[in-house]
Amino acid sequence: MSQESIPPAIDYSRVFSQAIDRLHTEGRYRVFIDILRNKGAFPNARCFAGHNGPKPITVWCSNDYLSMGQHPDVIAAMEEALHDVGAGSGGTRNIGGNTHYHIDLEGELADLHGKEAALLFTSGYVSNEATLSTLARLFPGMIVFSDEMNHASMIAGIRHAGCEKRIFRHNDLAHLEQLLSQADPAAPKLIAFESVYSMDADIAPIAAICDLADKYNALTYLDEVHAVGMYGPRGGGVSERDGQAHRLTVIEGTLGKAFGVMGGYIAADRTVIDVIRSYAPGFIFTTSLSPVLVAGALASVKHLKASSVEREGQHAAAATLKAMMREAGLPVMGSTTHIVPLMVGDPVKAKKISDVLLAEYGVYVQPINYPTVPRGTERLRFTPGPTHDEAMMRDLVSALVEIWDRLDLRAAA
Amino acid sequence: MSQESIPPAIDYSRVFSQAIDRLHTEGRYRVFIDILRNKGAFPNARCFAGHNGPKPITVWCSNDYLSMGQHPDVIAAMEEALHDVGAGSGGTRNIGGNTHYHIDLEGELADLHGKEAALLFTSGYVSNEATLSTLARLFPGMIVFSDEMNHASMIAGIRHAGCEKRIFRHNDLAHLEQLLSQADPAAPKLIAFESVYSMDADIAPIAAICDLADKYNALTYLDEVHAVGMYGPRGGGVSERDGQAHRLTVIEGTLGKAFGVMGGYIAADRTVIDVIRSYAPGFIFTTSLSPVLVAGALASVKHLKASSVEREGQHAAAATLKAMMREAGLPVMGSTTHIVPLMVGDPVKAKKISDVLLAEYGVYVQPINYPTVPRGTERLRFTPGPTHDEAMMRDLVSALVEIWDRLDLRAAA
Repeated sequence: MSQESIPPAIDYSRVFSQAIDRLHTEGRYRVFIDILRNKGAFPNARCFAGHNGPKPITVWCSNDYLSMGQHPDVIAAMEEALHDVGAGSGGTRNIGGNTHYHIDLEGELADLHGKEAALLFTSGYVSNEATLSTLARLFPGMIVFSDEMNHASMIAGIRHAGCEKRIFRHNDLAHLEQLLSQADPAAPKLIAFESVYSMDADIAPIAAICDLADKYNALTYLDEVHAVGMYGPRGGGVSERDGQAHRLTVIEGTLGKAFGVMGGYIAADRTVIDVIRSYAPGFIFTTSLSPVLVAGALASVKHLKASSVEREGQHAAAATLKAMMREAGLPVMGSTTHIVPLMVGDPVKAKKISDVLLAEYGVYVQPINYPTVPRGTERLRFTPGPTHDEAMMRDLVSALVEIWDRLDLRAAA
Repeated sequence: MSQESIPPAIDYSRVFSQAIDRLHTEGRYRVFIDILRNKGAFPNARCFAGHNGPKPITVWCSNDYLSMGQHPDVIAAMEEALHDVGAGSGGTRNIGGNTHYHIDLEGELADLHGKEAALLFTSGYVSNEATLSTLARLFPGMIVFSDEMNHASMIAGIRHAGCEKRIFRHNDLAHLEQLLSQADPAAPKLIAFESVYSMDADIAPIAAICDLADKYNALTYLDEVHAVGMYGPRGGGVSERDGQAHRLTVIEGTLGKAFGVMGGYIAADRTVIDVIRSYAPGFIFTTSLSPVLVAGALASVKHLKASSVEREGQHAAAATLKAMMREAGLPVMGSTTHIVPLMVGDPVKAKKISDVLLAEYGVYVQPINYPTVPRGTERLRFTPGPTHDEAMMRDLVSALVEIWDRLDLRAAA
């Protein structure tokens, strides 16, 4: 027997270690900052990093955009549900995990978007993955037209459908139409896009995309996770603000950002909801959202339907911070939304700025690196909300100016 | 221009309606029962079905196997977190959503399974999908050996990895070895299986599968969602009970069944956890578990590590119910676990029995149909726990006997 007949044993550990080493080499190994927020005093929080015990910080990168995670109505509703029905749902929606809270919230969300029905998922990620993969699988020959900046969860859904896909340049209507016109007119089509793009802070031309969908007989799928609660007179998102909600086949949203809790959902016609409910593995085979979360989200959605104070406070805070940063000569990216991204363009520098901000200034903002944004466009992403006051903004901007000078970033830019 | 050049417009609505019609035709259209559990009095609950207002029922199909969803320690911990830090985490683990609770719970879960580290996910479904797809993608040429009865979420993860896969017959060691021995010895390998199979109520031969993994140099992935909290002296699952935990590459579990809350996790070596944390889209791109849930799960895991009363109560209840059903001549399936499945073999009859139980006897047990189980093996699945007393069991068994006679099911069997 020759030596060649014995293959070398696979060294699994080495492959795992190499995968981690690659991240360190590229400067994009992620360190999670260990924090606890202070309910009632957000954006104030405590930081446990470095095991020096709790240290006060200001959070500048939360997606709890309107501080609804500490709203008295939300807390009270969750406490009531906790004492009435307990911690978890105990099962899938089909097997013991369908509570009255779930049904009420789905009704409320359908109403929010002017749709016949809605369906809850354990997260926005799962709602995108499960709905897109199931929709596309239902139509043999389906072609999905997907904005190049779509979120990872939408990409996962489209990929898992195993269907054909055409990527159109970000918010580029001419390119989208070119791709639509080149496709087989008889093929079923779906246009998948977001309203607010979180990392670039711009907004899709929803009406014009719906016009193209009409012209080429395509279904539409709109991710509004960074818009629900924050845009439109009742918080129905940019599709409500623009009066386009009725034209979209599916509107997808989250309960974990402006609504301040956790979970995801879709709203659509009754039959579409029934199909996803009945066919999507990511919906069927999972324990349903805890009724405690559902009760909190219900209170939050109801509150933001009626109250615009939070939305107005957020938009004002974003406008003020953008103006102050521009004034100070910081490289704030063009933003037509509530999000304020500051371009750095290098993963190591972005991490360094974030580290200095936390250690020396008690400012918590996470560096955004690949794969969340393309390599070479690493940035800091600030999310001012109604509870960030002007003094906090002044402190933040002067800290950034000092660090930008210290690290010679103006010269490098 | 000829008529032929205009293709018929696709009627999307018709495709959606037909998809729903197929379910009605097969008798497997799912109707979710609308309930609210009574905290402190589980398995008692209220049912809203038919809009006749709340009606008292007994829940027999919950996966809150040990009633931990109403345990005072769990409720108190959730209430404290709710008041301390608020409703949601406000971000992904990397961007603002990493709280001290998450870190504490991951430490507790690592300890529970005797592993170096653990990682939380928003659900057990996501933990399986994200981990299996990421693990397999890391090793070019990976072959996954998967038990034919593995859960939908494991199948999704393996499918999304896009790797080669070999299905072995359920718990069949000879077949698994045959497939392993036929595979390229140089190919990286992973054996994916469950400890307790929820629908058939049997248990995998963990030690023997680990022996095969050693012999053929394969990684191992064990789903313990129906076992954590319930098996082993500290609730570490069947792998703890059998003294095999240290031999498994990854142990996966849930916080939404015996632990009574919501969420999923994996436990493994530090490097493996770091790789999944750094590469899995289903982990990276999603809002982290609400700290309220994490606090509750932490209290639950800690309690069940120290207390065996709940486990013993559950195993006793399951043994009693199985004996009573056998005694009454009901077709209880062979079960070496805490789950008591009753074979019906027809989707329409299974639904009928379930409907009569709820409407006439206030007994809530959901029919289990395709795709959760293979067609023709439709069943009822009872999950007795420490809070189901003997009087409830007697009522249940006499109701079943009456319905079995009424529907002539003995003759049909």
